[in-house]
Amino acid sequence: MPIIECVPNISEGRRTDVVDAIVAAVAGTPGLTVLDRSSDAAHNRSVLTLAGDAESLARAIPTLFERAIPLIDLRSHRGEHPRLGAVDVVPFVPIEGVSMTECVELARRVGQDVAERLNLPVFLYEEAATHEGRRNLEDIRRGEFEGLASKMALPEWAPDFGPAQPHPTAGASVIGARMPLIAYNINLATDRLDIAKKIAAAVRFSSGGLRYVKAMGVALDDRGIVQVSMNLTNHEKTPIHRVFETVKREAERYGVAILESEIVGLVPSAALTAAARWYLQLDRFDPDQVLEERLRIK
Amino acid sequence: MPIIECVPNISEGRRTDVVDAIVAAVAGTPGLTVLDRSSDAAHNRSVLTLAGDAESLARAIPTLFERAIPLIDLRSHRGEHPRLGAVDVVPFVPIEGVSMTECVELARRVGQDVAERLNLPVFLYEEAATHEGRRNLEDIRRGEFEGLASKMALPEWAPDFGPAQPHPTAGASVIGARMPLIAYNINLATDRLDIAKKIAAAVRFSSGGLRYVKAMGVALDDRGIVQVSMNLTNHEKTPIHRVFETVKREAERYGVAILESEIVGLVPSAALTAAARWYLQLDRFDPDQVLEERLRIK
Repeated sequence: MPIIECVPNISEGRRTDVVDAIVAAVAGTPGLTVLDRSSDAAHNRSVLTLAGDAESLARAIPTLFERAIPLIDLRSHRGEHPRLGAVDVVPFVPIEGVSMTECVELARRVGQDVAERLNLPVFLYEEAATHEGRRNLEDIRRGEFEGLASKMALPEWAPDFGPAQPHPTAGASVIGARMPLIAYNINLATDRLDIAKKIAAAVRFSSGGLRYVKAMGVALDDRGIVQVSMNLTNHEKTPIHRVFETVKREAERYGVAILESEIVGLVPSAALTAAARWYLQLDRFDPDQVLEERLRIK
Repeated sequence: MPIIECVPNISEGRRTDVVDAIVAAVAGTPGLTVLDRSSDAAHNRSVLTLAGDAESLARAIPTLFERAIPLIDLRSHRGEHPRLGAVDVVPFVPIEGVSMTECVELARRVGQDVAERLNLPVFLYEEAATHEGRRNLEDIRRGEFEGLASKMALPEWAPDFGPAQPHPTAGASVIGARMPLIAYNINLATDRLDIAKKIAAAVRFSSGGLRYVKAMGVALDDRGIVQVSMNLTNHEKTPIHRVFETVKREAERYGVAILESEIVGLVPSAALTAAARWYLQLDRFDPDQVLEERLRIK
């Protein structure tokens, strides 16, 4: 059974009954599991984590839109987090037994379906983007709901699906496909923030480091130590063990040891199995040798 | 959903129709999966790998005995592998979400049930053993089917369940609970068998090494290298990474590098996750953070 994760970000984080109603609209879908939901009142935003196969998600996500859009009016929505739609962002994430290509196809199919059913402009992003300038969510979302009508008047901001003008209350939605994000932190046995910042700069893509790493140095004041705080945006191409070993080597150069590392939130099993294989030099290992994997296949 | 593995060893490896019939007797049990079956004609023995929860196994295993015992007559059975019963050995192995204590209880419950239904002597072994002298399968099986009647005449070899004499055609069965076995080999970048043997002696329990390791040095003549070939009998207490690092350190002492390691057959996911956690220093990791694990719980 293939597993796709889907993480709808919804512009409502205060009215619990509204979020309840939206979750309830998808919770009963056969083949779909609601793994997590979290709401942030300051951001006025909720994030759902769903998992299922392509068919269950293709059925559930349009239902989620149909339930959410009448309940959320962006004309009166205020919150700290940038947003351009009532259902702001919907990424599909390949977890197991499914390719990125299949997630891209699913994003496009759902995007088209949602645009037609709700008369809503849809922009495709990241791996599903139709041109390079729409890969980054931040570029699409810049100007937010309030600036959307004038932005969409520009020919380069015609949506991928749906009408050429914003939906009056729901704005537009950004739908796409991306690799799972792994929030990964490494704690250093020092209180010197400058060292954590230097290591972050060495390891992150934006300043010349590893391609799928975002990193910053932060102080953990209560513990008197510092941390290299990272997002790993493609664990297949930039695996956890390479990030760990790179940080460890940079820290050694400053005479600093690694205290521990931590994963915040969920991690796909394959990311940990890959680390075990690398360290143990398990060259001829087939994922079917994992007993639980064999059980899933049978 | 808890997962218990059960590995019945059956004294028939030549008549495919008999093995088919025995597999068919359990294959349809709700909640149970037949992961693997393999028959060896020289040994005249078949090994089934089943997985399921306690209830499905408690239902399936007595059915397996009822089907197998009328079809196998040990009085005419010949094969290279030692055996004392038609259904020779049945270990229950905790894989996930289940304790060793629960597997011991299951072994005793199934042992009693089988003894009563089939009027068959049952010996409990390994973690389910009722006294220390019955932990080792080899001690129980010594003398085999042919010597069983005289062995059972001794008071110390009264069975745990069932009659005090062997079953006329099916002998007796050994039922118990043990940790999963991991067949783990490390290949060395040398053709010197003496080094592989020295490392095997250093790492194995029997000559002073790690408690849950059996090891021997073997030559892989076709590749011109040698191997430390091991069985890890308790990966929770003697984890794979400790075995790997110990072999690596011993090899270094002889100026030899590790080429690669390999796992033969199945490995529980937890054994690989533990290695990833150790190498990455993931001190505060909860198994529920593995996305697939979260899916199973929900």
